[in-house]
Amino acid sequence: MFEDKERQEIESVGKYPLIQKLSEKLEFTHAETLCGIGEDAAVVKVTEGVGTHVSRLFLEYVHFDLTYFPLRHLGYKCAAVAMSGLVAMNVIPSHLRLNIAVSNRFSVEAMEELMTGVRMCCRRYGVDIVGLDIGSSLTGMAISTDAFGFAQESDIVMRKGAGEKELICVSGDLGAAYAGLLILEREKQVFEANSQMQPDLEGFDYLLERQLKPEPRVDIIKLLKSKAIQPTAMTNVDEGLAGALSNICRASDKGCVIYEEKLPIDILAFNTLKELKIVATTVALSGGEDYELLFTIKQDDFDKINTMENISVIGYIQEPSAGENLITNDEKVVELKTMGGKQ
Amino acid sequence: MFEDKERQEIESVGKYPLIQKLSEKLEFTHAETLCGIGEDAAVVKVTEGVGTHVSRLFLEYVHFDLTYFPLRHLGYKCAAVAMSGLVAMNVIPSHLRLNIAVSNRFSVEAMEELMTGVRMCCRRYGVDIVGLDIGSSLTGMAISTDAFGFAQESDIVMRKGAGEKELICVSGDLGAAYAGLLILEREKQVFEANSQMQPDLEGFDYLLERQLKPEPRVDIIKLLKSKAIQPTAMTNVDEGLAGALSNICRASDKGCVIYEEKLPIDILAFNTLKELKIVATTVALSGGEDYELLFTIKQDDFDKINTMENISVIGYIQEPSAGENLITNDEKVVELKTMGGKQ
Repeated sequence: MFEDKERQEIESVGKYPLIQKLSEKLEFTHAETLCGIGEDAAVVKVTEGVGTHVSRLFLEYVHFDLTYFPLRHLGYKCAAVAMSGLVAMNVIPSHLRLNIAVSNRFSVEAMEELMTGVRMCCRRYGVDIVGLDIGSSLTGMAISTDAFGFAQESDIVMRKGAGEKELICVSGDLGAAYAGLLILEREKQVFEANSQMQPDLEGFDYLLERQLKPEPRVDIIKLLKSKAIQPTAMTNVDEGLAGALSNICRASDKGCVIYEEKLPIDILAFNTLKELKIVATTVALSGGEDYELLFTIKQDDFDKINTMENISVIGYIQEPSAGENLITNDEKVVELKTMGGKQ
Repeated sequence: MFEDKERQEIESVGKYPLIQKLSEKLEFTHAETLCGIGEDAAVVKVTEGVGTHVSRLFLEYVHFDLTYFPLRHLGYKCAAVAMSGLVAMNVIPSHLRLNIAVSNRFSVEAMEELMTGVRMCCRRYGVDIVGLDIGSSLTGMAISTDAFGFAQESDIVMRKGAGEKELICVSGDLGAAYAGLLILEREKQVFEANSQMQPDLEGFDYLLERQLKPEPRVDIIKLLKSKAIQPTAMTNVDEGLAGALSNICRASDKGCVIYEEKLPIDILAFNTLKELKIVATTVALSGGEDYELLFTIKQDDFDKINTMENISVIGYIQEPSAGENLITNDEKVVELKTMGGKQ
């Protein structure tokens, strides 16, 4: 947790010197980046192709709770989540902009922590930070992040495009970020009831990391490209698998079936959820914040994909009239919309 | 003011159907726009040149007060303000994304009003809406808007680039938006003291319009282009003239002098501010939300610019050691940083 050892007030520094201070350590890694912070807009050289963009808005009390969310992790996550939207279109992010609104609860040091996280994420993924604005908030912190990337039109994978009998794949595992959130919320309640109690987070590292420090799956789209697999449709699993699958099915005008036994659920997440008396499948379907990729591929690519780590084939696409279904471990057919699908 | 005659709750509709409903009337006017709402990211075809981007974050209670800010105007303003950032780089905006966070205070009809305003602004300026996300807020409405545009690198005008002896110009007039805000705040207080009193806004139309419905000065950059005038430096007057001028001087490493008598102040704004016992010059220098363009041009362009309506020459650029100065109407030299300059 972040501690205010030395506290410098934001108003004692002023908005523009603070922006300057926070952007001192930034360097552009892309030769295409012409300007960013300190101008009215970001300017990036482009060549023939497509520009892609995604933006995300994060509000304190809704999207994050600073009683247990370290600011450095928050910065990392806000950057990563915006990037993950581009990755879901098969685009490698290259640029990021950031707007932050804060009240006088926050110090200069706190802003530096937040920016350190943003910078770490951007450095890891080779993303240039080309915008930073800081404004006032009366009610809590608000952060908006924008990620951009440039690609060839033929690289773009949309939600539409899934064909019948194609295979449904998902990267990584599902439900662990939500399990991490439940653990953090539990320990917060314990702490609030008795502030002498120290939070017991030991052994939950993987779940906490999934909640506090998600990664955009740039590795997955690079891996697929290296094996010459172009998904036919793709989206981000940000609000549970059922919703993501429904987005692909609706955009592609198709139905689908997936198998409960094929769902990739981490063993620690499974056991933790069980202890909390929650069915892991439900969390995988309708939890959130996994930021994994859900995509469809042609059957011909099965042999290639089947040998890849971190990718699971979980079902296949059907004709639209089939609806969206889950085959449970005891071989029942359940409509996905009753399990958290977006309707 | 917007009245909830028939009220449909957002939660009774659901997030995705609401986004669909709000985006029904949208049409793309640019052949380059490949996808937007309903995908993970916006995708726009680009050719050799530069992509430019600006984002703005608006928070209720900080940036707008819904007791007197009609939602339709708010939508218009949030779009216009983002666009004005691009215009300040001499770029015509072409695309817009929008994130809105609302609590259950707001109805579906309220969201439709807001979107109507966004749509009106975008239609007026030929801008495609390529993103709309709706999330929850516990504390008030939050809106982020992102504007994009594409241009040739040689078209871009930055804050840096102003040369000694060049002329300082500003579009439109200054201080009226702030005067409008003061009138709205005054009538709000009257109403709060006695709810039987109806707000007396008659005769203040121009000031209210400047506050509630600002315009990105696309007309000015088109006009300059048509006369083959390329500014050497440019920025947005969004937080008062002194701050904007300071941004140009710092980025260009120059000083400047401007003349109080040359400042373009609307007569209604002047008289209203006088009645409120506020010096109009102070408001022009350090008020806000004018969204006019401040730019520098070569002396050779003086004859051309001098005949243009809506553009005032207010001073000239000096060597850096001269500082940033205002010559007052009684011929005193005042340092601008004491008058609201950003430090």
